[in-house]
Amino acid sequence: MECPNFIRFFTSNLDVQESDVSDLLNQCERLTIKKNYVLLNQGEFSKHTFFVEKGLLRQFALNENGKEHILSFAPENWLVTDRDSAYFNQPSIYSIQALEDSLVVLIDQSFIDKLTQLVPGFTAYNNRLLHNHIRHLQDRIGLLLSATAEERYLNFVQMYPDVLMRVPQTMVASYLGITPESLSRVRKEIAHKKSE
Amino acid sequence: MECPNFIRFFTSNLDVQESDVSDLLNQCERLTIKKNYVLLNQGEFSKHTFFVEKGLLRQFALNENGKEHILSFAPENWLVTDRDSAYFNQPSIYSIQALEDSLVVLIDQSFIDKLTQLVPGFTAYNNRLLHNHIRHLQDRIGLLLSATAEERYLNFVQMYPDVLMRVPQTMVASYLGITPESLSRVRKEIAHKKSE
Repeated sequence: MECPNFIRFFTSNLDVQESDVSDLLNQCERLTIKKNYVLLNQGEFSKHTFFVEKGLLRQFALNENGKEHILSFAPENWLVTDRDSAYFNQPSIYSIQALEDSLVVLIDQSFIDKLTQLVPGFTAYNNRLLHNHIRHLQDRIGLLLSATAEERYLNFVQMYPDVLMRVPQTMVASYLGITPESLSRVRKEIAHKKSE
Repeated sequence: MECPNFIRFFTSNLDVQESDVSDLLNQCERLTIKKNYVLLNQGEFSKHTFFVEKGLLRQFALNENGKEHILSFAPENWLVTDRDSAYFNQPSIYSIQALEDSLVVLIDQSFIDKLTQLVPGFTAYNNRLLHNHIRHLQDRIGLLLSATAEERYLNFVQMYPDVLMRVPQTMVASYLGITPESLSRVRKEIAHKKSE
């Protein structure tokens, strides 16, 4: 199973040889999974971070009233993990599921440790990724608190340009915190503006 | 200006001597500020993280339509920073303002570097703080997407037990993403349940 995205993800961001990443990759578990396969169930434990080489995952939770919300989509080149489980030894808050047939690389702490030893700049890079993730989550909170349905939708299109065509519209609505009817209305309004 | 909270924040979480933290503290700027003082204006630049020794801050943004939302409150022992400005050289997304007369310690990169050199476990600790912050923001997104006004309120009370009495109810409502009327109704319902 070739993983060119995985190798490029690290070589394009870090001062590391392709052969070194390739060696590390060979020590990682890789999973070819079918659409709807659940990599992690809410309440289970996993120490892995999943890198999406090919396909599409979603991270979602059901609350006590059975209402589902989608925390994130993860298309190619995205990383996804449940932090409660991976870093705080608690049952996972989220389920992680394939929305398409996918190829996933499982990253664990030993991979991180080896990369840290190999690449002097890795700790700083990882830190930057974490700060950037915080920034992104803060933006999303801002959108949920004070943006219109249209603004949320346009932000989504910018962040996940191709996901929109790959998932049911009900999931996009769930991610945005709007009803499927609002989403449909917003899309029509935008199409109408473009055609004017 | 004594800063016992600041010193305890580090000595209770890291293997570091009080005298060492005290030395580092003496190299930090400390600000005594009045209620309503703005430490950082949206659009400005600041490389600082603010530690609240005494008092209470809020971090908030106005969107293009003039709608305000509150990202966080920061009472004693909390850290607050604008990540776009501090880590990504972009204009700040948020304003940071005092809601009470406050004493604030300004932390900069040189403080972090010195602490990293002094305390071998600091990098891992800081990493854990970042992951925990991500967890907290994800929880908040989950609450905004699928929790009732009552659930959001109860979560707020748990996280900020004393802030509730220190800020106007309109700000609590703004943080929760509900109307002041909903907040008032929820509080009455909870008081009613308790008195039964």
